[in-house]
Amino acid sequence: MNGKILLVNGPNLNMLGIREPEKYGNQKLMEIVEEIDKIAEQNGFKLVSLQSNCEGDLVDFIQKEGINGKGLIINAGAYTHTSIAIRDAILSVKIPSIEVHLSNIFAREDFRHHSYLSDIAIGVICGFGPNSYYLAIKAMIDFIAKSR
Amino acid sequence: MNGKILLVNGPNLNMLGIREPEKYGNQKLMEIVEEIDKIAEQNGFKLVSLQSNCEGDLVDFIQKEGINGKGLIINAGAYTHTSIAIRDAILSVKIPSIEVHLSNIFAREDFRHHSYLSDIAIGVICGFGPNSYYLAIKAMIDFIAKSR
Amino acid sequence: MNGKILLVNGPNLNMLGIREPEKYGNQKLMEIVEEIDKIAEQNGFKLVSLQSNCEGDLVDFIQKEGINGKGLIINAGAYTHTSIAIRDAILSVKIPSIEVHLSNIFAREDFRHHSYLSDIAIGVICGFGPNSYYLAIKAMIDFIAKSR
Amino acid sequence: MNGKILLVNGPNLNMLGIREPEKYGNQKLMEIVEEIDKIAEQNGFKLVSLQSNCEGDLVDFIQKEGINGKGLIINAGAYTHTSIAIRDAILSVKIPSIEVHLSNIFAREDFRHHSYLSDIAIGVICGFGPNSYYLAIKAMIDFIAKSR
Amino acid sequence: MNGKILLVNGPNLNMLGIREPEKYGNQKLMEIVEEIDKIAEQNGFKLVSLQSNCEGDLVDFIQKEGINGKGLIINAGAYTHTSIAIRDAILSVKIPSIEVHLSNIFAREDFRHHSYLSDIAIGVICGFGPNSYYLAIKAMIDFIAKSR
Amino acid sequence: MNGKILLVNGPNLNMLGIREPEKYGNQKLMEIVEEIDKIAEQNGFKLVSLQSNCEGDLVDFIQKEGINGKGLIINAGAYTHTSIAIRDAILSVKIPSIEVHLSNIFAREDFRHHSYLSDIAIGVICGFGPNSYYLAIKAMIDFIAKSR
Amino acid sequence: MNGKILLVNGPNLNMLGIREPEKYGNQKLMEIVEEIDKIAEQNGFKLVSLQSNCEGDLVDFIQKEGINGKGLIINAGAYTHTSIAIRDAILSVKIPSIEVHLSNIFAREDFRHHSYLSDIAIGVICGFGPNSYYLAIKAMIDFIAKSR
Amino acid sequence: MNGKILLVNGPNLNMLGIREPEKYGNQKLMEIVEEIDKIAEQNGFKLVSLQSNCEGDLVDFIQKEGINGKGLIINAGAYTHTSIAIRDAILSVKIPSIEVHLSNIFAREDFRHHSYLSDIAIGVICGFGPNSYYLAIKAMIDFIAKSR
Amino acid sequence: MNGKILLVNGPNLNMLGIREPEKYGNQKLMEIVEEIDKIAEQNGFKLVSLQSNCEGDLVDFIQKEGINGKGLIINAGAYTHTSIAIRDAILSVKIPSIEVHLSNIFAREDFRHHSYLSDIAIGVICGFGPNSYYLAIKAMIDFIAKSR
Amino acid sequence: MNGKILLVNGPNLNMLGIREPEKYGNQKLMEIVEEIDKIAEQNGFKLVSLQSNCEGDLVDFIQKEGINGKGLIINAGAYTHTSIAIRDAILSVKIPSIEVHLSNIFAREDFRHHSYLSDIAIGVICGFGPNSYYLAIKAMIDFIAKSR
Amino acid sequence: MNGKILLVNGPNLNMLGIREPEKYGNQKLMEIVEEIDKIAEQNGFKLVSLQSNCEGDLVDFIQKEGINGKGLIINAGAYTHTSIAIRDAILSVKIPSIEVHLSNIFAREDFRHHSYLSDIAIGVICGFGPNSYYLAIKAMIDFIAKSR
Amino acid sequence: MNGKILLVNGPNLNMLGIREPEKYGNQKLMEIVEEIDKIAEQNGFKLVSLQSNCEGDLVDFIQKEGINGKGLIINAGAYTHTSIAIRDAILSVKIPSIEVHLSNIFAREDFRHHSYLSDIAIGVICGFGPNSYYLAIKAMIDFIAKSR
Repeated sequence: MNGKILLVNGPNLNMLGIREPEKYGNQKLMEIVEEIDKIAEQNGFKLVSLQSNCEGDLVDFIQKEGINGKGLIINAGAYTHTSIAIRDAILSVKIPSIEVHLSNIFAREDFRHHSYLSDIAIGVICGFGPNSYYLAIKAMIDFIAKSR
Repeated sequence: MNGKILLVNGPNLNMLGIREPEKYGNQKLMEIVEEIDKIAEQNGFKLVSLQSNCEGDLVDFIQKEGINGKGLIINAGAYTHTSIAIRDAILSVKIPSIEVHLSNIFAREDFRHHSYLSDIAIGVICGFGPNSYYLAIKAMIDFIAKSR
Repeated sequence: MNGKILLVNGPNLNMLGIREPEKYGNQKLMEIVEEIDKIAEQNGFKLVSLQSNCEGDLVDFIQKEGINGKGLIINAGAYTHTSIAIRDAILSVKIPSIEVHLSNIFAREDFRHHSYLSDIAIGVICGFGPNSYYLAIKAMIDFIAKSR
Repeated sequence: MNGKILLVNGPNLNMLGIREPEKYGNQKLMEIVEEIDKIAEQNGFKLVSLQSNCEGDLVDFIQKEGINGKGLIINAGAYTHTSIAIRDAILSVKIPSIEVHLSNIFAREDFRHHSYLSDIAIGVICGFGPNSYYLAIKAMIDFIAKSR
Repeated sequence: MNGKILLVNGPNLNMLGIREPEKYGNQKLMEIVEEIDKIAEQNGFKLVSLQSNCEGDLVDFIQKEGINGKGLIINAGAYTHTSIAIRDAILSVKIPSIEVHLSNIFAREDFRHHSYLSDIAIGVICGFGPNSYYLAIKAMIDFIAKSR
Repeated sequence: MNGKILLVNGPNLNMLGIREPEKYGNQKLMEIVEEIDKIAEQNGFKLVSLQSNCEGDLVDFIQKEGINGKGLIINAGAYTHTSIAIRDAILSVKIPSIEVHLSNIFAREDFRHHSYLSDIAIGVICGFGPNSYYLAIKAMIDFIAKSR
Repeated sequence: MNGKILLVNGPNLNMLGIREPEKYGNQKLMEIVEEIDKIAEQNGFKLVSLQSNCEGDLVDFIQKEGINGKGLIINAGAYTHTSIAIRDAILSVKIPSIEVHLSNIFAREDFRHHSYLSDIAIGVICGFGPNSYYLAIKAMIDFIAKSR
Repeated sequence: MNGKILLVNGPNLNMLGIREPEKYGNQKLMEIVEEIDKIAEQNGFKLVSLQSNCEGDLVDFIQKEGINGKGLIINAGAYTHTSIAIRDAILSVKIPSIEVHLSNIFAREDFRHHSYLSDIAIGVICGFGPNSYYLAIKAMIDFIAKSR
Repeated sequence: MNGKILLVNGPNLNMLGIREPEKYGNQKLMEIVEEIDKIAEQNGFKLVSLQSNCEGDLVDFIQKEGINGKGLIINAGAYTHTSIAIRDAILSVKIPSIEVHLSNIFAREDFRHHSYLSDIAIGVICGFGPNSYYLAIKAMIDFIAKSR
Repeated sequence: MNGKILLVNGPNLNMLGIREPEKYGNQKLMEIVEEIDKIAEQNGFKLVSLQSNCEGDLVDFIQKEGINGKGLIINAGAYTHTSIAIRDAILSVKIPSIEVHLSNIFAREDFRHHSYLSDIAIGVICGFGPNSYYLAIKAMIDFIAKSR
Repeated sequence: MNGKILLVNGPNLNMLGIREPEKYGNQKLMEIVEEIDKIAEQNGFKLVSLQSNCEGDLVDFIQKEGINGKGLIINAGAYTHTSIAIRDAILSVKIPSIEVHLSNIFAREDFRHHSYLSDIAIGVICGFGPNSYYLAIKAMIDFIAKSR
Repeated sequence: MNGKILLVNGPNLNMLGIREPEKYGNQKLMEIVEEIDKIAEQNGFKLVSLQSNCEGDLVDFIQKEGINGKGLIINAGAYTHTSIAIRDAILSVKIPSIEVHLSNIFAREDFRHHSYLSDIAIGVICGFGPNSYYLAIKAMIDFIAKSR
């Protein structure tokens, strides 16, 4: 086995497919997670995943699972723009991370243009709906392969 | 029955009537909630209410109760100025909201002059102590009546 | 008799019900004033009211009527964001004031987010159309009652 | 008859030809108005014109004459940079407007580079002395012709 | 006779001695004007004086009386910080001006720290109560004497 | 002959009448140039014209043709907001210039509100579609006539 | 055939694999283009590709090839942060675009954090070296498939 | 007994001695808490201590234990820079507080230079690793002694 | 005797009458000091005076002489805009101060528009050349008289 | 002997115990220095100490004594916020430093929130009156011990 | 031979000696280049030189000639302030560079005070007219000599 | 003799060759001064030179020696960025000045990017170590020669 990959989803992403389908599409978060899980497994990785609306729970999860994880894919939702705590959690477990967003955050309100997670990530993928996640898991698997 | 109205109180509002009475008056939060509950009931509405110090709990509550609510009255306390997550929760359930504050936030520190909730609300009421809430519940009932 | 309450309406509010009904509703300013007058009278107050497009006339009125008034309800329209003179007039007569707006100023252009009148008022009510005024007159009557 | 065109001149423009001829030329405002009046008449329009140093009078005039006017040419002078009230007046009567200036405001003090009227106008013409007005009346007549 | 000196007082200065005596002292504006008139007369000057709450009236007065005046003493009150129109009026009549304030504007709110009139004046005197005016009339008389 | 007038069109203006007709109208650039050429000729001027998407070509053209030109009409398109090089080229040949825009740049994105060319121009005309150009050539011919 | 996809590379990307391999890897741009070309072909698309150091050439290419293209993948290099002209070119041909970067621009100098191309793109992919391009071509093919 | 002292540790401080030892040293948080507990006890104080990654839990703890506490030592970690809720909690229980940090926050990223807790604290101690805490408990004991 | 008044002159004021006479007039500093000395003496005050180019000497002098002085007139020259140390010295001896400048600092470079001394002074006088000092000594004598 | 420790006190700290006792306490600076001297001596260090109101003297002292010093405790007073020269002096002698303040600078004027010395210090201690110094000398002795 | 030195001149520098001689002197660019060529040759270096008004050409030249050059002297003219592409080109060939300007850019418009090239250069020389170049070639030769 | 040239060195430059040799090289200041003295003498100039850590001493020296000096070469060290007093001293003696720095200030901290001396100097030379001075003395001699 190649190790563990973390998938972290922040506040309101549990509403995916339910809320505002015209903005975020109508695929449910669970369906996306299952798809990523499948891709991870096919490449010999174990996916551990959490969605939570609570900043503290996200920090707890990253600390606990990140410590011996190989990579982290994170859509921190609104916390992307306000949480230094999640940034510090990622830094504390020294895990390579990819930041993803369903929508193109640069085409939205000004306060969504800044992220506390971007500069410590390998890279950023945004604007492709659920596809943002699928591109990210592939990019992560490639990255881990190259780093070995 | 006319439907459900949400009342959401953010961090430190449980200290109302206990902390800093010279700034916030000495009416307890529970007394205010009871009063609003009464007004709601007299107008054929059911009030569901939460106070929490945790941003995530507030998001959870808005998602769960907001989905089939008719209106939302929110005093997000300190989260008014820092929480994009609560903003997104309100948007996700597409519920009309009114922002209230006990004190006049424009007469306080600069960082209290900006709200992440104002521009997505119907309106804002602040500065009238517990009366801010009573005016808000009346305004909400009127708004719902007119929207029918 | 409980005393005199001032109602001050700034520039372009005479166009209410005429201009941009989709933004401000189609109730005329005179109808709103009459309604407030009725509420004031029922509570033992005399309403004195002025609408003017001229900053100087508004200052004159506040000075003259405010000096022995009990309270002031003001929708200064565009002058809300540009007039220090009106602020100074209110301060000079030391009268408790409530700032009202028909529309939700926080959902409009950036230059409407700052008010020279908010921090010296008891409180602010905005976004409820003519109802902003009715809530304000009630809040003012309550405030005066409590201050006695 | 093709309808009514408004010409609005703000503070200190009555000093034209009297004050600072090296900056503004020595043609009097009245001479310019007469010239525009002639052009309007030749094209089947009636010109109504006001110069005032008082923001409120300008608002009154725009409200009264704008309501059934076809177009508005405005040199709001110093109020260009400070008056939201005039902006609102133009919006309230939903009249197409052209902003003119005698001098090139972008070559002057920083505080003259922002206008509260530009973004709601059809267009802006500045820097050509009295010619700014003559170009504007032609542009307005063209605009009205095309909109029919 | 040495000529005419203008004294211009802006909004709310008619409340002097009436409003906020703890901030502005209890001398009435009329008493101050009389005192200045006396000093002017003793030095062979004629004082013309206006107090108005209306920006437009102040502009009218400066245009009319300034055109053949020798000097201008101005306390534009709140308009100090918002009126480009008054600035332009002073510039249009090319009259030497002195800016005065009763209170020390630099010890008050931030928005009172900027003046549209300072950089085009000979100088500024503020913080000395009515004495600011008396110092200013003396300074103006000296200035005119030296310029001859 | 009265001399040579330059007409300079910057990036993407070759797409005029092709791209975004709802924003810029459907008249082709070539048609506009022909019209201006005709007006110039009728007034005894020779028009030299360039459209280029390359900043350097625009600078080359202004240097080469501007050195003995009488006037310059320029719509620098996107380079209006980013090119100091074009500004310097105009300054280097000391030619009077008029800045034109088809659309009203003040009603568009913030980054289009600043121009590196405005303060060194005679004046600015924007918002009138192709008419902006026709007004500009007339204004230029007038300006040259008056300067003689 | 499914149509044409544009690949646009801006200034200094011709140095890829030559300059700063520690920052950008040692794969040459030509090798990347060939790889993308292969993927495009496998999916029934024709790739047209340009690298240029000249802003104007990039604009020319986007205008010419974009007009009947299905999608555009762009790494505008330094022009990402300074070129409104390229933004306008993309808008003028109304072609869906994806912005890519080899490095994580958010982990570099401040002036690389703002892009004139992001908000008009479908989405952004950065930080994955040549993989950014391979993810982008896949995302584009998916996007076109879904839009049909 | 002299009363109760609170020790509050925010997000990621549970990783102390585990994460980034080169930045924060390799002493575990528990060891530090034990040491402080010992010092408190020797001086007749009872220490109550909480570490949590959840902003709401920290607010709950401060409200509950602070109400009858004598002093509060807080290292709010990342929440130092983002949490107005914790600020309000400290204010609500009117308890003297000392802000501590292991690292020198002024030598780190810009966003760590502002604290929502500093201006309401007695003082700030940062940069001395675990020693920051030991200095703080001594300072707090001194402060309480002097306030009696 | 009525007590001691301090006169403090900062850097480069020793060059008065020597440097830039067209900007500062040709009266020497010593002549001004003598004149002020005379006025002080006539009113029963003793003048102590220092000019220094060294910030530390100015602080020393204010501390030593200010401790039992009645008032302080200060032209801190360039230190006006950069010295918090002089501000603190004035505060430390709790002496009423008047800030003076020969030139009108608001008509000069931007960095001369802010003063660290204004908000702690009684008032400010600037722009009248040596007369600024004479007006200040009179204002100070009046102020001391009124405070008794 | 363990070596030499520098204690540097900037402008106005000689007024300690004399000026503003309500803000800074009534212990004289000399008493504090003696106390620190005693602590240093008990730990085998020699204290060299300077208070000066002159920025240059402070720089001279740091250069001369710092070159073979073991550590530096500095309360630069007002120069904390304005002196890059002192920063450079500390850097030039490569001596570990601790910044101290009697008052909590973060609870005072905005211009006291930034320090030119913090980011090059080991750490910062402020708000504890003379105790700030005693904590600092202990922290310095600990730091030197650990660095050996 | 000691190797190749690049001399790069940006937009409008071909107008040197022709345009604005009062600002830039009347020496032609070619004469300056010849002089530098002579100095280079005398020191055993070969000079390769380009002037272009096109950003892309400048990038091309730096890439092509810089790759095996020993040093680069650049006066990027207006592109100094707007071109990240030229910055990247210099970085890509890892060549030591000196930035020169004929005029003192710090005495000109604000937008000329920032350079995208300064922080990656060895040093900057500006304000000495053609002499800026001669000083730069000497500095470059010295620098290369010392680096060997 | 051709006259006197001033060489002024500000704070911490006496540490040159002693402090941070990796940043500033290991040539002592005295050696540099001797070298410049030699160049001056060879060209018929007398060099007067001062290094001081005290802003006031630098001002004194510039006033005293500058009054009949021919030119001034200044490395004001840290005072470059904070001293308006030195700027005023240079202006007061109307002497042509050249600003030099050993290091490239644009490659260092942000607060070193602004100079109070640049815009009043002939030019600026920075980044070449001691060579900055040698280039400056040559530039100054050339400048004086040309000005005769």
